[in-house]
Amino acid sequence: MSYHYLLDIALILISTKLLGLLTSRIQLPQVVGALVAGLILGPACLGWLQATDFLTQVSELGVIVIMFTAGMGTDLKELRQTGKAGLLVALCGVLVPLGVGAGLMALFNQGEFSYPGDTLMQNIFMGTVLTATSVSITVETLKEMGRLSTKVGNTILAAALIDDILGLICLTLVTSLAGSGVSVGIVLLKILGFFLFAAVGGLLALKAFKWYEKRMGERDLHRFPILAFVLCLLMSYLAEELFGVADIIGAFVAGLVIANTTKAKYIESKFSPLSYLLLTPIFFASIGIKVTLPHMDAMILLFTVLFSVVAVLTKLVGCGLGAKLCGMPTRQCVQIGCGMVCRGEVALIVADKGMALNLLNPVFSGPIVIMIVLCTVLTPILLKLVFKGEKPYDTLEQSNLVDSIEMKEQYNIVSDRLLQAECSRMEQSKNKNKK
Amino acid sequence: MSYHYLLDIALILISTKLLGLLTSRIQLPQVVGALVAGLILGPACLGWLQATDFLTQVSELGVIVIMFTAGMGTDLKELRQTGKAGLLVALCGVLVPLGVGAGLMALFNQGEFSYPGDTLMQNIFMGTVLTATSVSITVETLKEMGRLSTKVGNTILAAALIDDILGLICLTLVTSLAGSGVSVGIVLLKILGFFLFAAVGGLLALKAFKWYEKRMGERDLHRFPILAFVLCLLMSYLAEELFGVADIIGAFVAGLVIANTTKAKYIESKFSPLSYLLLTPIFFASIGIKVTLPHMDAMILLFTVLFSVVAVLTKLVGCGLGAKLCGMPTRQCVQIGCGMVCRGEVALIVADKGMALNLLNPVFSGPIVIMIVLCTVLTPILLKLVFKGEKPYDTLEQSNLVDSIEMKEQYNIVSDRLLQAECSRMEQSKNKNKK
Repeated sequence: MSYHYLLDIALILISTKLLGLLTSRIQLPQVVGALVAGLILGPACLGWLQATDFLTQVSELGVIVIMFTAGMGTDLKELRQTGKAGLLVALCGVLVPLGVGAGLMALFNQGEFSYPGDTLMQNIFMGTVLTATSVSITVETLKEMGRLSTKVGNTILAAALIDDILGLICLTLVTSLAGSGVSVGIVLLKILGFFLFAAVGGLLALKAFKWYEKRMGERDLHRFPILAFVLCLLMSYLAEELFGVADIIGAFVAGLVIANTTKAKYIESKFSPLSYLLLTPIFFASIGIKVTLPHMDAMILLFTVLFSVVAVLTKLVGCGLGAKLCGMPTRQCVQIGCGMVCRGEVALIVADKGMALNLLNPVFSGPIVIMIVLCTVLTPILLKLVFKGEKPYDTLEQSNLVDSIEMKEQYNIVSDRLLQAECSRMEQSKNKNKK
Repeated sequence: MSYHYLLDIALILISTKLLGLLTSRIQLPQVVGALVAGLILGPACLGWLQATDFLTQVSELGVIVIMFTAGMGTDLKELRQTGKAGLLVALCGVLVPLGVGAGLMALFNQGEFSYPGDTLMQNIFMGTVLTATSVSITVETLKEMGRLSTKVGNTILAAALIDDILGLICLTLVTSLAGSGVSVGIVLLKILGFFLFAAVGGLLALKAFKWYEKRMGERDLHRFPILAFVLCLLMSYLAEELFGVADIIGAFVAGLVIANTTKAKYIESKFSPLSYLLLTPIFFASIGIKVTLPHMDAMILLFTVLFSVVAVLTKLVGCGLGAKLCGMPTRQCVQIGCGMVCRGEVALIVADKGMALNLLNPVFSGPIVIMIVLCTVLTPILLKLVFKGEKPYDTLEQSNLVDSIEMKEQYNIVSDRLLQAECSRMEQSKNKNKK
């Protein structure tokens, strides 16, 4: 049955797309649908799909590509210009969930849930899962309400981008410390070494890429996405091999490098079909497949409830506090807090990494998935509540970050339309030739 | 070392691209470069790459996607209009190499090269490897000489497309007969069943697809490539599961179905990055990796030489004969024969399938790869010789097949330029906003 993987991929593609369409109809992101598809097809429910070696490896590659794309979407120059508001909100919004999440885990990480390895690291790891905000659903909701181009919208965008980076730094620290078994000093030195290497290597790669870009011009454009992918793979590999840093961090850094080339959008547009035709659906589905529902006893249900409450409250309080420290009015602080509640891909990727490194007992995969779904459902509801009574467009603000996001969406739509139009035009001229 | 696959992919991407660029500079197709890259990196030479499970599985998926794309590029309606010349050339050009190739193999398939299984089937299989012409290099050469839009060029194009289909039918017969161990009658019935299923299922899928296309219009275009891929995967799976027919035949048929939708070019353009960023380089490299050079003793070298001579002569004689039967002048018959000599992807895919089904002793992978490289090198040289003295453009002929090929290339270039232009325009408007 060596061809069985064909059916697996077909099932994953059709189910994630169908459920993604369903969830997007009820205003939820397609990620939730894809997760649920995996849950339903996996051992937790129907049992049609198993976590085969092939699916696991492809989903690992999927994670690399998702993080690479996330890096390509992050414009460091513009982040620097957004000022301290975003940084403070992100910082508090990372530290509070990290601390409280680790504390909650400490209460549960014993007895029946005890897991071989360093307990302290496992607790901190659970906190790390809570750090990264997924901003896409907030952006959608704010846009719909006409509130994206405001100070609140802009701060949320900047903070969400920064807390991705902070969350990845936490992950780097935790995974490096846990995996090595050597002293903290050496691990910190290695991490420092990685960031130095990333900075120098990234700059050199950027220079080389730009030189090559200039030399090649618009000839044979295919080679640019290939070169970018090679950079991503090499950075990921070297991060693990030389510095003991998680491969996804390397991929993210490679994405940051590519974001600064003039071909960034073109390259992103070529990675998009690679993602949505194969890698991303398999990644989300295999997260769902890995969830072990049969083990969900009373204790784990209790943990799930508490963990979800902690996930919502810590972001709300943490980010609100950060905004307060910047001197924003309380109403805006609450709005920012609610906008940062949502979790998504990065939390899943972190959890996945944790299971691979034995930092996370697979029993907890269920609670994490449920927490993410709950936060996603809650975010638009909360946002609509806290913006009630305010007129849209009364505090509009010029923002490069918002422009970037809108430009990227516009680019995707425009380029797809262009392709389709070109296609129809040729079809017609062909038919005309025949007559 | 679970992250080692990252380095493997990076090595494959960069080496296939570099060697592909080198070979295309000396007028050879990039396939040859990619093969040589695999040979150099694999156990036959440097030993940096091994055929891991991951690479093997991804390359299998790569074959499915290559055949699916080949199907999408085949327009059955236009093939039917090209008349009997193409069909006769293809038919003779398939039967002669099949017979002579099998005869040659019968001489060698004994003693030290004997291989468990049905010897007759193994011999016929070796003939099957020789059936499929790769037309891309001929098209390039003829275009360069301004001879593509002639009767000769048009006949070559039609014959090459038809002999792909004939070659795949041979493969279906051989693999079904060899794998099953049941009577010839049942196998033929199953193959007939598959073609019935393919025709009915294909028509139904086409109807459903067109209905959905009309209903959806230009909204959310992503779902069309996903649906097409699901069709491809299901067809491949069902071909193997229900009818014992090779999965690549199912993928090819799915491609034929998609070729008849108005979204065909759009879908093809989305599969292109999936191919060139991941699947195709891994497929070609892993063919190179599988070649076992250390076993190349005197006998196998003799076989390689004879096999290559047979490959060139049988196509030349077979296709020339077919053209002669259509009443073409001898000069044109020789030109057509030379244009059909080249072998490529499909021969490799057939050989790969044979090794997976124990129909091909891996010892013969070396000769096959060398034969392909030799035919590829010879084709442009032969073509330039046999067209010597003729003025270009003196026998131009209107041809839909030639139009299709040129239109597809133009589409790829135009759409890439459009994307890039849109990208630069947005970059500029962004910079303007900042000022």
